[in-house]
Amino acid sequence: MGTEFDTKYLSGFIEDEDLNGIESEVKSAHDILYSGTFRSATGWLDLPENYDINEFNRVKQCADKIRNDSDILIVIGIGGSYLGARAAIEFLHSSNYNFLGKDTPNIFFAGNNMSSSYIGEILDMCKDKDVSLNVVSKSGTTTEPAIAFRIFKNFMEDKYGKAEAKNRIYCTTDKNKGKLKELAIKEGYEIFAIPDDIGGRFSVLSSVGLLPIAVSGADIDRIMFGALKARNQFMKCSLEENDCYKYAAVRNILYRKGKSIEILTAYEPRLSIFLEWWKQLYGESEGKNHKGLFPASAIFTTDLHSMGQFIQDGSRIMFETNLIIKNSRSHIVISKDKNDSDGLNYMSGKTLEQVNRTAFKATVLAHCDGGVPNGIVRIKDSSEEELGSLIYFFEKSCAISGLILGVNPFNQPGVEAYKNNMFALLERPGYEGLKNKLCGNLPV
Amino acid sequence: MGTEFDTKYLSGFIEDEDLNGIESEVKSAHDILYSGTFRSATGWLDLPENYDINEFNRVKQCADKIRNDSDILIVIGIGGSYLGARAAIEFLHSSNYNFLGKDTPNIFFAGNNMSSSYIGEILDMCKDKDVSLNVVSKSGTTTEPAIAFRIFKNFMEDKYGKAEAKNRIYCTTDKNKGKLKELAIKEGYEIFAIPDDIGGRFSVLSSVGLLPIAVSGADIDRIMFGALKARNQFMKCSLEENDCYKYAAVRNILYRKGKSIEILTAYEPRLSIFLEWWKQLYGESEGKNHKGLFPASAIFTTDLHSMGQFIQDGSRIMFETNLIIKNSRSHIVISKDKNDSDGLNYMSGKTLEQVNRTAFKATVLAHCDGGVPNGIVRIKDSSEEELGSLIYFFEKSCAISGLILGVNPFNQPGVEAYKNNMFALLERPGYEGLKNKLCGNLPV
Repeated sequence: MGTEFDTKYLSGFIEDEDLNGIESEVKSAHDILYSGTFRSATGWLDLPENYDINEFNRVKQCADKIRNDSDILIVIGIGGSYLGARAAIEFLHSSNYNFLGKDTPNIFFAGNNMSSSYIGEILDMCKDKDVSLNVVSKSGTTTEPAIAFRIFKNFMEDKYGKAEAKNRIYCTTDKNKGKLKELAIKEGYEIFAIPDDIGGRFSVLSSVGLLPIAVSGADIDRIMFGALKARNQFMKCSLEENDCYKYAAVRNILYRKGKSIEILTAYEPRLSIFLEWWKQLYGESEGKNHKGLFPASAIFTTDLHSMGQFIQDGSRIMFETNLIIKNSRSHIVISKDKNDSDGLNYMSGKTLEQVNRTAFKATVLAHCDGGVPNGIVRIKDSSEEELGSLIYFFEKSCAISGLILGVNPFNQPGVEAYKNNMFALLERPGYEGLKNKLCGNLPV
Repeated sequence: MGTEFDTKYLSGFIEDEDLNGIESEVKSAHDILYSGTFRSATGWLDLPENYDINEFNRVKQCADKIRNDSDILIVIGIGGSYLGARAAIEFLHSSNYNFLGKDTPNIFFAGNNMSSSYIGEILDMCKDKDVSLNVVSKSGTTTEPAIAFRIFKNFMEDKYGKAEAKNRIYCTTDKNKGKLKELAIKEGYEIFAIPDDIGGRFSVLSSVGLLPIAVSGADIDRIMFGALKARNQFMKCSLEENDCYKYAAVRNILYRKGKSIEILTAYEPRLSIFLEWWKQLYGESEGKNHKGLFPASAIFTTDLHSMGQFIQDGSRIMFETNLIIKNSRSHIVISKDKNDSDGLNYMSGKTLEQVNRTAFKATVLAHCDGGVPNGIVRIKDSSEEELGSLIYFFEKSCAISGLILGVNPFNQPGVEAYKNNMFALLERPGYEGLKNKLCGNLPV
């Protein structure tokens, strides 16, 4: 069925006239998106149709090789070079993927933080195991993944020797230039390209995301097919017929009505990293020029017992978007207890999934009563095809939404501020001036 | 050293006169807290001094037994019966605790959601393993843990037979009454008491949290000792000398200055569930009467590459509190690369921890420059003692902060709204009227 956006529980919060009022801005956003103004950053837009089939097949071959010769795949990357792959793997399998009995490798993500205990534990887990390494970095010089790659490259060469290590190291990096590209050529690593016109947070359907996803055993052809269907489904410039644009419009309407926070919710724990992926996509695209909805996430019913009170009755500053998967793939029936010692017999015979679905309905009604607008993004099931559709839906909606907001959705100038300070404090050559400015102002 | 709150990076955002202005309200909050008005909900206040030593010793004995006879401990609970134990275990060990080579049981948490695939996976992982069960529920009738307990009780009795299963099931429940209490007596389970005067989100230092924490091998005596030191350290009604009260005051000052969101950050992935515990503590205590700071969390540097752009330059609606652990317990030195192929040699010889600490300093300075006030909550190390101190610091500060805000920090009436709707939709006897009201208004 693809992805749909249901506005039923926005009634009372958003009127037809709100949607009519913003329609011309949606049209302008659409026109800008297709005008070529951002051509250098919108390669993701036609990617499901235009992707490099040779590279795609090479991804599948390498994934086969890794599945055959490795117990563990280490994926080194941060931000958009990390979240998409992990989000998809957990979405398609489980947040306990590494614990499941399976014939695919365990997959650990490194280079997304600078915790020495975290990296030390992964090194420990790799002892006595066969390991492959996928380093994902456009420049090769982003601090976190570069440090991790230094450590794991040494580990691999110590373990396998340089000759065999090079058969187990896969670099996903800039097509033409950069430190990692140079090193990969010199060392003879397998190389995949990050397309020039696709930024990190829009890159999950390129080799950046697809190699680790394929290693997990997922069918990446079906993911691309789902994305292609979404591309065709969400092309028309219409609020009436294009749910992707409607979601973008609704977010901006609610923002203008004073909402500051959007909470994306889901009822399956294995979606929690997908929600993190969404947070980067929207937060990094829109959070600039002192504007933007603050993106937050919640897994229900878990977080109804933590953030539920606030959402029901705290500051009225948020709306919710519920990410709902219609069909569950697992069924557990609640049994009857002869003494009904917990008083649950009234729901015996129902599946857990039915109760979970009922909790969703109950929560939407309760939160609406509490004054929280609720939208619903719905897909049919947690298949590869539906995931592909969902990813494309959110990417395109994000671009439209950011353009309506009046920002450039494709840059992230603010991310440099802490990096520059860090380079200065670490005494990287060339940052001496900034270092002098910062010193005397440091926390302990 | 215990917990301290550093306000250096709040200068420019908060002036001395702001603190002077709120001092009388802090004093009132302190007086209310100790007046006995909330006596029935503030048992946590003197718990580190007053805890039941017999029960405490029984927790340690049972933890020993579980460590000796079980590969896996399943902890069933939701909200305050879930987050504290998991937060402490990950804080003290690792977010990969279950993956580490160790001589303590794996610990899985169930009953905190209604995902059938989640619960099915845990059942699978328990095959061919020795299992113990700790069910934590005051009433025994909260839907999520009650369903999970039904499922896992059956599993245990099928696996071990009723006679041995009862030696492996531990109930943490109301002292005197309730469905679970009745069942536990009838079946002969080991029973631990949830004190009447301690609400779920304040219960981690009772048997609720301590049994699973002790099973993980942590020293719960040291946790209680750290909490006791904090109790004594943070008793005085003074903004000058009581950092716990100062944190409560600062939050309220920033709220009144228009900040809507507090982001608690940490630089170690293993703190991510601790941040979730904090979100429940503050969100559920303060989010009522359409008031309160929205609590959010971020793990840096990971999330600097997702939410970093927004924090640096998006809507100016948040402040940050940084949870900093001074001394790391793991050290990895960045090696020198003879070709410097990644350009990192300028930091070779430094430990990863030094770079992580530098990232923190760089980020605080960058975000302050961006207009985001930054407070720092600091502890010495990630020992049990410092964790105990930190827990007490946040609990007491939360109570004071909620009282300054003018809400009852100890109730959570809003959590009932979705539950009541759910009971009605599931046709629980007694909810027929509400069911008729809700129907016709349901999402698909």
